[in-house]
Amino acid sequence: MDIPNLRDLAPGAPIRSGIPEHGRIPKYYAVKAKISRLIEELGDGQPLPTERDLAVRFEVARETVRQALRELILEGRLRRQGRGTVVAGPKLEQPLSLASYTEGVRRQGRTPGRTLISLDRFPCSAALAPEVGVEEGEPVWHMERVLLADEERVGLESTYVSVARAPRLEGEFEPDSSFYAYLREHLGISFGDADERIETVLATPREALLIGTPPALPMLLIHRLSRDTAGRPLERVRTLYRGDRFSFTTRLGGYGDELG
Amino acid sequence: MDIPNLRDLAPGAPIRSGIPEHGRIPKYYAVKAKISRLIEELGDGQPLPTERDLAVRFEVARETVRQALRELILEGRLRRQGRGTVVAGPKLEQPLSLASYTEGVRRQGRTPGRTLISLDRFPCSAALAPEVGVEEGEPVWHMERVLLADEERVGLESTYVSVARAPRLEGEFEPDSSFYAYLREHLGISFGDADERIETVLATPREALLIGTPPALPMLLIHRLSRDTAGRPLERVRTLYRGDRFSFTTRLGGYGDELG
Repeated sequence: MDIPNLRDLAPGAPIRSGIPEHGRIPKYYAVKAKISRLIEELGDGQPLPTERDLAVRFEVARETVRQALRELILEGRLRRQGRGTVVAGPKLEQPLSLASYTEGVRRQGRTPGRTLISLDRFPCSAALAPEVGVEEGEPVWHMERVLLADEERVGLESTYVSVARAPRLEGEFEPDSSFYAYLREHLGISFGDADERIETVLATPREALLIGTPPALPMLLIHRLSRDTAGRPLERVRTLYRGDRFSFTTRLGGYGDELG
Repeated sequence: MDIPNLRDLAPGAPIRSGIPEHGRIPKYYAVKAKISRLIEELGDGQPLPTERDLAVRFEVARETVRQALRELILEGRLRRQGRGTVVAGPKLEQPLSLASYTEGVRRQGRTPGRTLISLDRFPCSAALAPEVGVEEGEPVWHMERVLLADEERVGLESTYVSVARAPRLEGEFEPDSSFYAYLREHLGISFGDADERIETVLATPREALLIGTPPALPMLLIHRLSRDTAGRPLERVRTLYRGDRFSFTTRLGGYGDELG
């Protein structure tokens, strides 16, 4: 059997083969493994042969090649460029920390950016009220921004914060900058701690449109609830990151007694 | 426009509509939104009407209903049961901590379990050697286990540890138990810290077969590199969790000076 597990080809891959031990290998998966090897040989940014050429080369139908390419694109190994397909660079590694998106992207030598989609104020719903520290019906801001890395759209961030906390947000805040820096420098508010939850979801049509991804691309969704240093609720953030472009890292430690 | 953002229906959802402001709403997505409301009305474990009934009710083709159901299943809102489809319970929330899978699942009132797939020893590769603290070619264990919650298969875990560290793993270790408890109680090894990386990937055919998921289901993949309390490399773990069944939580704090 000469078809390797696709992840054997990637750094940090497991040692064992990924081939089903019982049951047949789907034909598209065998093609995917072959294209995967080709990706390794080509390297970042290099163009892949056309669908037609790959179909001839591997002696399969074009639809089989297309299915393999579709998965490799969803996984971020390949990306569309103009009419062709090129080898994608590695995923960005964003630290799971209170540091902002801006800071995380800069650490990786990329240029962070944000484009404002909307900034509205509305009466707070009952569900949101305790999360941003207001009573139901009191005004809250909702700010929605597309996240950029080197001008590539990579995510979508929704921030909810009470108007009482940041009364002059509209006008005073520069939407392309770090909201955390604004809170600290203009309002003297410092973050204390936050609870985060991370999951994978499919992009909705609107989200896919705003981020410029294929519809139903798997995304990483991070929910954040943060508090200031006095422990009062500060903001609720919902950030969607392209699953093909991001991974998140964290350092765990000091919980020796909790081990189960 | 009476079609809500699907996430508006879920707890912690954003306030704004998910409808594309420019461009048309795909028909299947409108159906998905309607089924999503139906899911809310029905509640956990309740059966959904058949594809045929839904197609008649919403006046669309069965293929349109099928596409909507497919996404709701991938997202973990629905699950197949026998020949039908039922409303799925909420995702399990697993803490990102040094606590083991066993402990995390127990905290949520579920019964954790593990089924051994394979336990092999092999000469360590150059890439793996520094991660498990051996020289290339020295023997390492690879243990692969399917993770269970209440007897449902929910993940697949690959653990690599040097044979020098755990010479009697085979025979002495009970595969259904916590590996961390074994290291601590039998070998006196305590965890110090670990680096983790989390990303979303598609299940390979072999993984889908072992976990019993649809092929190409989005999964959460966690890479862990851990060290003992003396800072020496201990194990490398690669754990794949069903993206439709798991989310991960973390508490961030105490990094006030790092904010960007």
